Amino acid sequence: MKKGLFIICILTASLIKAEDGYDLWLRYKPVENKLLLQSYRSFLKDISVSGNSATIQIIRNELLKASRGMLAQIPVFNATGNKGLIIGNNKKEKKNVAFGQEGFAINSATLAGKPVINIEANTDIGLLYGVFHLIRLIQTEQPISALNMISQPKLKLRLLNHWDNLNRTVERGYAGFSIWNWHTLPGYIDKRYIDYARTNASIGINGTVLTNVNANAVILTGPYLEKVKALADVFRPYGIKVYLTARFSAPIEIGRLRSADPLNDSVQNWWKEKIKEIYSVIPDFGGFLVKANSEGQPGPQDYKRNHADGANMLADAVAPFGGIVMWRAFVYNPESNDRFKQAYEEFKPLDGKFRNNVLVQVKNGPIDFQPREPYSPLFGAMHHTPLMMEFQLTQEYLGQGTHLVYEAPLFKEVLNADTYSKGEGSTVAKVVDGSLDNFSLNGMAGVSNIGNDINWCGHPFAQANWYTLGRLSWDHHLTSEQISEEWIKQTFSKDKKTIGVIKNIMLHSHEALVNYMTPIGLTHIMYNGHHYGPMPWGNTLNRPDWNPVYYHKADSFGIGFDRTAKGTNALVQYAVEVQNQFNDINKCPDEYLLWFHHASWEHKMHSGRTLWHELCYKYNTGVDSVRSFIDQWNSIENKIDAERFRQVQQLLNIQLKDAIWWRNACLLYFQTYSKKPIPSTYEQPDKPLEYYKSIRILYAPGN
Amino acid sequence: MKKGLFIICILTASLIKAEDGYDLWLRYKPVENKLLLQSYRSFLKDISVSGNSATIQIIRNELLKASRGMLAQIPVFNATGNKGLIIGNNKKEKKNVAFGQEGFAINSATLAGKPVINIEANTDIGLLYGVFHLIRLIQTEQPISALNMISQPKLKLRLLNHWDNLNRTVERGYAGFSIWNWHTLPGYIDKRYIDYARTNASIGINGTVLTNVNANAVILTGPYLEKVKALADVFRPYGIKVYLTARFSAPIEIGRLRSADPLNDSVQNWWKEKIKEIYSVIPDFGGFLVKANSEGQPGPQDYKRNHADGANMLADAVAPFGGIVMWRAFVYNPESNDRFKQAYEEFKPLDGKFRNNVLVQVKNGPIDFQPREPYSPLFGAMHHTPLMMEFQLTQEYLGQGTHLVYEAPLFKEVLNADTYSKGEGSTVAKVVDGSLDNFSLNGMAGVSNIGNDINWCGHPFAQANWYTLGRLSWDHHLTSEQISEEWIKQTFSKDKKTIGVIKNIMLHSHEALVNYMTPIGLTHIMYNGHHYGPMPWGNTLNRPDWNPVYYHKADSFGIGFDRTAKGTNALVQYAVEVQNQFNDINKCPDEYLLWFHHASWEHKMHSGRTLWHELCYKYNTGVDSVRSFIDQWNSIENKIDAERFRQVQQLLNIQLKDAIWWRNACLLYFQTYSKKPIPSTYEQPDKPLEYYKSIRILYAPGN
Repeated sequence: MKKGLFIICILTASLIKAEDGYDLWLRYKPVENKLLLQSYRSFLKDISVSGNSATIQIIRNELLKASRGMLAQIPVFNATGNKGLIIGNNKKEKKNVAFGQEGFAINSATLAGKPVINIEANTDIGLLYGVFHLIRLIQTEQPISALNMISQPKLKLRLLNHWDNLNRTVERGYAGFSIWNWHTLPGYIDKRYIDYARTNASIGINGTVLTNVNANAVILTGPYLEKVKALADVFRPYGIKVYLTARFSAPIEIGRLRSADPLNDSVQNWWKEKIKEIYSVIPDFGGFLVKANSEGQPGPQDYKRNHADGANMLADAVAPFGGIVMWRAFVYNPESNDRFKQAYEEFKPLDGKFRNNVLVQVKNGPIDFQPREPYSPLFGAMHHTPLMMEFQLTQEYLGQGTHLVYEAPLFKEVLNADTYSKGEGSTVAKVVDGSLDNFSLNGMAGVSNIGNDINWCGHPFAQANWYTLGRLSWDHHLTSEQISEEWIKQTFSKDKKTIGVIKNIMLHSHEALVNYMTPIGLTHIMYNGHHYGPMPWGNTLNRPDWNPVYYHKADSFGIGFDRTAKGTNALVQYAVEVQNQFNDINKCPDEYLLWFHHASWEHKMHSGRTLWHELCYKYNTGVDSVRSFIDQWNSIENKIDAERFRQVQQLLNIQLKDAIWWRNACLLYFQTYSKKPIPSTYEQPDKPLEYYKSIRILYAPGN
Repeated sequence: MKKGLFIICILTASLIKAEDGYDLWLRYKPVENKLLLQSYRSFLKDISVSGNSATIQIIRNELLKASRGMLAQIPVFNATGNKGLIIGNNKKEKKNVAFGQEGFAINSATLAGKPVINIEANTDIGLLYGVFHLIRLIQTEQPISALNMISQPKLKLRLLNHWDNLNRTVERGYAGFSIWNWHTLPGYIDKRYIDYARTNASIGINGTVLTNVNANAVILTGPYLEKVKALADVFRPYGIKVYLTARFSAPIEIGRLRSADPLNDSVQNWWKEKIKEIYSVIPDFGGFLVKANSEGQPGPQDYKRNHADGANMLADAVAPFGGIVMWRAFVYNPESNDRFKQAYEEFKPLDGKFRNNVLVQVKNGPIDFQPREPYSPLFGAMHHTPLMMEFQLTQEYLGQGTHLVYEAPLFKEVLNADTYSKGEGSTVAKVVDGSLDNFSLNGMAGVSNIGNDINWCGHPFAQANWYTLGRLSWDHHLTSEQISEEWIKQTFSKDKKTIGVIKNIMLHSHEALVNYMTPIGLTHIMYNGHHYGPMPWGNTLNRPDWNPVYYHKADSFGIGFDRTAKGTNALVQYAVEVQNQFNDINKCPDEYLLWFHHASWEHKMHSGRTLWHELCYKYNTGVDSVRSFIDQWNSIENKIDAERFRQVQQLLNIQLKDAIWWRNACLLYFQTYSKKPIPSTYEQPDKPLEYYKSIRILYAPGN
């Protein structure tokens, strides 16, 4: 019987649904270290949790789930015996300012001679975050017997931006289609909505913009607000607020007004009434994200008003309810001689003119989520306006659904950049977290990479980018390495060698992509429209600023966009110290060279190679990196569940094919200008340029 | 230690991923009956399987999976000891004609004094079907110690038709988006493709048309054929052939010809070359499904040719490779005074003119997959042409993704209908299985209800309709009750009470829907375009045959479409015996009354009620049925896993809301003609007609 039971047990365990990735980083697999297991078990055996709010119930359920999975132990809640874990919301009179509204403390103590862990917070949400932190410590097998920590989020708004349309297509979505099934809402609550909230709470994300910035006014109509309310009700106990995108012309489209002029009384009144209606349905509605006068979206400029006029109209209407407005700075038009400069030119003069419940949301770079961009000059230019960071998790320009790219290094590079706008150390991070200019309203948004694929993000490693957004927006001091290690342990394995291999791939993945796509400061040479694959020859769109040739400006002399004083002088938008880094073609860091200079094919790089040779070198290095990722991944075949191993393996093979495609297409095309051979030490393209020009990717996702 | 292990075991088991529905009817849960368990274990302990083809490997894996899950036992294959199960492909010289290419026998025998089960077939695929049959016996807890059976499919072609577009939208799809991720094919083989093949093989489906009948020629281009090949390679060892839809104008669109005239030499040659190319990539390519000259699709009539000319051109080109053409009879145009008649009028004269590798694929009814239709008169009219049955699994007109409708009763009603075309007993089933006219080429297709929702079909009960298509196309003698019982045991529970409750709901679900949507022979009064919800008042489309008023013809006298000799005389398309059933308004069965007669509001029904009163009665009966389904479902709350219980519960509540919406909207609208009160014994609509007319469903799925 004993043996039979054992066999049944093993068989049952082996039948646990394979790793389809649905559980993300909340897999709660058994703790392997026996000493730690003993310690965890003793602390989590008897748990005191006071209160009975929906959030407190979630805490209990999560601890139950985590204990069962990781410790094979069912905790007793509020037992009379000695407790090991005490979770308590501080009473009103005892609020601890160090915790804020969302922070928590975890402390080891002794109670009646027994070691105990206290989790304290001022709110139930703070407790939930504390509990998820403790669970993360256990998941990553950290000791918990001597804890003494306070954690508070560095940013107030930690948001996902879904570019999801009401018909469930997702603009720039590569993980299937929208998880929001508007048709069956509000009657049908998909379990995904709950798991989405829970997953976000586990990494501190506290808001979600449900709809595409290319907005549809229908979301603001009564029947749709009922659907939004159903989601808000699911998300609320997880500390997540719902936001919507506001279509600026909504007063015309659904309000039957003749104008959407923000200074028009009827328009203002329409928005006031609409917003009153929204708050009557969703009392804690977060507010609006707005893309206006950008890529065809309507906006205040249609009425000769400016961005501040538009933002302030909405801000005034949401203010009585505590709402905010996030107004995007992503604007450009074909009249400008340099798209790089336009956001600065439009927004800098408005600095200080926005209401105090408005944030201007700025993409990390001046162009558009390219593999590598210098930080947007706006971050050094707006001392009277809180600037919210917009990162793109979904890999529009980063190989989309099939390339392994860990984005933390990209994000950190931007956050760590120094604007010098208030002297050395005025990093983008300090602008974004409000510490530079003393803004308490601050935030970071990630354009979601979530879809209805079983594993949420399509590529198993894309999950890491969602994770990164949460962790970095909570604490931007975390390093790429720390975040990757946490994520790997929770997502794949606690085996040291395996962690090492995966971490190595992740930490090199972004630079590899830059190398095989857009090395040395090349940018925006992707295929028109869908942006999958190379198209450096692209010059047929009648908007020049949508054509790759606009960005690389290759000619017989050389390549690159001159943004010095001899060129468009965009560099002047940065502080002098930054200008000095980039101004001199011989000092400009290699990775930004072609962002700021039109350099000769013979230009001597810091490596000693000519620019043309360096281009050949970098493209080949990128390809070699992917080859190395494949070898490394294959080396851990038996350390990873078969299903995800095979998924990643197949995707890496596609990535290699694509990297070679990029390299060959770009080198062959640029060669028509450089007129130089690809050094024979490198792999030579096996097809002519015409072949690469003839490739058409039809029905690419995310359009 | 023993106790600890036990607890771990229990905890592990309880952590088995909840029932998200992904596993469909192949869940392989532990056998509950202990005596049977013992018997199953003894037979499946040592298994002899000869051969090593991909299919044989699949057989081993499936038996391993089934044994581990249901019997907690790992079978030994090809052991030297006494075998319990012998699986053997008959050698060439010993082929058994009774099995055919796909059939199998399962027999109990004694070997060396020990009971043994033999599974025999002429092909490895036959063995796979036999193994799935044995597994089904175990899943449904049937005794297997005295088996003596031969099973051969009654139909040669058992196909799914995917109306999937290359951009992954699915026409009339209500389960998310297409499972075919064309963008990542052929490099990425989604595990779903394998599970799709395996699931289909488990119910005998042996072909799949991957693309929408509203076709796109791009699927026939080289890069897409490589993607199709990747799928065909996955499906092949599961006995599943791949078919495509042929866009009739492909020679123009991708071949750069000026014409697609089927009698034009260059056109014929283009198709021959294209088809040669297809077979060079996919040697066992099944053939084409074609929608031509229907709803805007191009076709031979564009060149004054007929359907036979078009079909034969393709048939001649695929014939050398063993391919077939399925040519759809779903044609109608606004010039006809009765859409009902057109398929017959166009196809009857062509009977005998098609090549012998052509089937004409006929929708079950003369209009379009309505909740209830009389069978298409073509089934009684084409004795020289094999007619393939087209059923619609996806619930375009059956409440779409949110209504519980088990379709077997609908399908059986059609199959059992007697055409009398060769005397009494000339059922539609005999036409379809070829026995009436001696066609060895025969088949049944189901328009797929599969999408990328985690549970494949959206509504958990929609899985039953996929299951039904497989089982009925294998053996159309199976009853709705048998199929439902099999499915429930495998999908939900083996508890008698639970089975009884679920079966009762399923068996009454179709009639309930007919009652709350289109009772007494009403038809096609759904909302324009998306077909979700009622719109009996619809009369604004400029194609009259797309307007609901065309179909119900309500006026102050009465309601219904006169298809007798006094009307459009469509009835004459049926055999005299059938005409006699329907011709007399007083004898015509109630459920078909308004299909064939324009009956007075005062018309006396068989119930004794007036037509108007009967309409009120039926609509209310439909609503009451759904209320009863909810009560019944709630009664088994603890017998079903929480996740699926809650899913179905939420969906039933939506269904009830919709049923009330249908009842109120239709009765209020028809009342404007009948001028009679809704009898006070019935629930009265709580909103005026104008309210129901104002409802707009935007972004409905499946368009």
